[in-house]
Amino acid sequence: MSIKQEMIEKLYLQKSEGDEELTNNRKKLVSNWFENLRDEICSSFEKIENEFSKEKEKIVFKKKKWDRNGGGGGTISIMKGQVFEKVGVNISTVYGEFSEQFRNQIPGAEKNGKFWATGISVVSHMCNPFIPAAHMNTRFLITGEGSDKKIWFGGGGDLTPIFEDKNMSHIFHNGFKESCNKYNETYYPNFKKWCDEYFYLPHRQETRGIGGIFFDYLYNNDWDKDFSFVKDVGKTFLNSYVDIINKRINRKFDELDRKNQLIKRGRYVEFNLLYDRGTIFGLKTGGNTEAVLMSLPPMVLWP
Amino acid sequence: MSIKQEMIEKLYLQKSEGDEELTNNRKKLVSNWFENLRDEICSSFEKIENEFSKEKEKIVFKKKKWDRNGGGGGTISIMKGQVFEKVGVNISTVYGEFSEQFRNQIPGAEKNGKFWATGISVVSHMCNPFIPAAHMNTRFLITGEGSDKKIWFGGGGDLTPIFEDKNMSHIFHNGFKESCNKYNETYYPNFKKWCDEYFYLPHRQETRGIGGIFFDYLYNNDWDKDFSFVKDVGKTFLNSYVDIINKRINRKFDELDRKNQLIKRGRYVEFNLLYDRGTIFGLKTGGNTEAVLMSLPPMVLWP
Repeated sequence: MSIKQEMIEKLYLQKSEGDEELTNNRKKLVSNWFENLRDEICSSFEKIENEFSKEKEKIVFKKKKWDRNGGGGGTISIMKGQVFEKVGVNISTVYGEFSEQFRNQIPGAEKNGKFWATGISVVSHMCNPFIPAAHMNTRFLITGEGSDKKIWFGGGGDLTPIFEDKNMSHIFHNGFKESCNKYNETYYPNFKKWCDEYFYLPHRQETRGIGGIFFDYLYNNDWDKDFSFVKDVGKTFLNSYVDIINKRINRKFDELDRKNQLIKRGRYVEFNLLYDRGTIFGLKTGGNTEAVLMSLPPMVLWP
Repeated sequence: MSIKQEMIEKLYLQKSEGDEELTNNRKKLVSNWFENLRDEICSSFEKIENEFSKEKEKIVFKKKKWDRNGGGGGTISIMKGQVFEKVGVNISTVYGEFSEQFRNQIPGAEKNGKFWATGISVVSHMCNPFIPAAHMNTRFLITGEGSDKKIWFGGGGDLTPIFEDKNMSHIFHNGFKESCNKYNETYYPNFKKWCDEYFYLPHRQETRGIGGIFFDYLYNNDWDKDFSFVKDVGKTFLNSYVDIINKRINRKFDELDRKNQLIKRGRYVEFNLLYDRGTIFGLKTGGNTEAVLMSLPPMVLWP
């Protein structure tokens, strides 16, 4: 049985998860945390950008709020600089009812389609081809209602270097490994494997990058512990990525390196538009197009 | 009833379409014609390219053959120049059996999944933002066997300008309209509507370009007439497009025009990877990745 199937089965063993008040508290706790994490990521990235670029005018994230037809909304934060060619940090809290078409694809939503979801997404495409592109997402979902209610966390982070190097890979993977091991020693090997399987382009027979971790349907009958793990995933991603950026920020590159980077980005686009569940789901269920496609690289070559 | 449903229903009224010998002759006739059309398109485009660019070394299409696992193969022809930033002309003749998953999506293939298909595809992305990108495809399909055999043609052509202009639109649409009217006065209005509906990006609420014609499941119990129409579609596309190129080849453009072109190309990528049946079908049924993704523009911006 795949780890995905295992986790979905465990999700269905979920019993009543407290009353409305407890649920509402958790909704607030998680969405506030994602907002704080967004602020922390943005200020870390702005610090790196401005220390490097030394522009007269400080380069900052530009924020844009959006409302969702059907309930909820989010905020896009985008920065374009000389280190970060284009980096987006989105948060959103959305709710409503899935269409008939999508109900059976989402655990717990089968009966009445009701859902509530909050999440954060980070995607960065860098100027310097020696600094990898990065992606992180964590989310908290509630589907159904009453005794049929299901709650879970999902998320992960992965890295897309143009040029692999062992040191970079070690920093990124080891960070996640250590965080995972604090909670459950099966997490890292399972979530790493899931990540490798997920970020794969069959038509190219290539992985999107060097992986990381990917998990979904995380529910352990110990909500505080699960939430704590999800917080660690976000913090670990930020720490590892900042470390990797700082180690490579002054590395010289030439036109050919840059060309290879722009070609590699094509694979990123192919993956996101052909296979990424979040992207396809977002676009086909009336999500905010600008927020969903924030992930697309600023410049791409298919020579 | 949509035109698509109407044509599929007509397809199922198809009775025996002659013996093996007749079928084999038709296969040869059509695939030879596509090869000739490929040659004609390539030499017309090479003539335009070299008259304009005046390079010492003649710019030509580079050809690459590929074989398909499961039966058949094709030839990719690609030229990169100073008029044609990237233009591909692919021909292919493939056959075999559709997987269980795809059988029910292809008329006539329900029973045993057998198919034989030949086609030509043209996609051009131009250096000058005032010359539109163009796409043309025609194909001949045979599915099933014996008395269950279904044969039909499909195809069309459409234009993706960055800056619309009425003269360009008139040349392109009127060319198809005149060709269509020689065969059936319902073709142009029906196939134009089908094209508009097909090349639409719901997540952007935008059309991909200014349309043209799109048809599938064309079967009229008069094979020679259908084939003649398909030949006219190819020739008309070439004549109209060459006319449009020549009228705009010397038009001056600036950096902003170019930027707008590269952004518009992003929509082209989004359409092809998210919605285009041929692309998704090709990639998910083990088609030749290089041939299928020949359609992607050489350089794209998602700023």
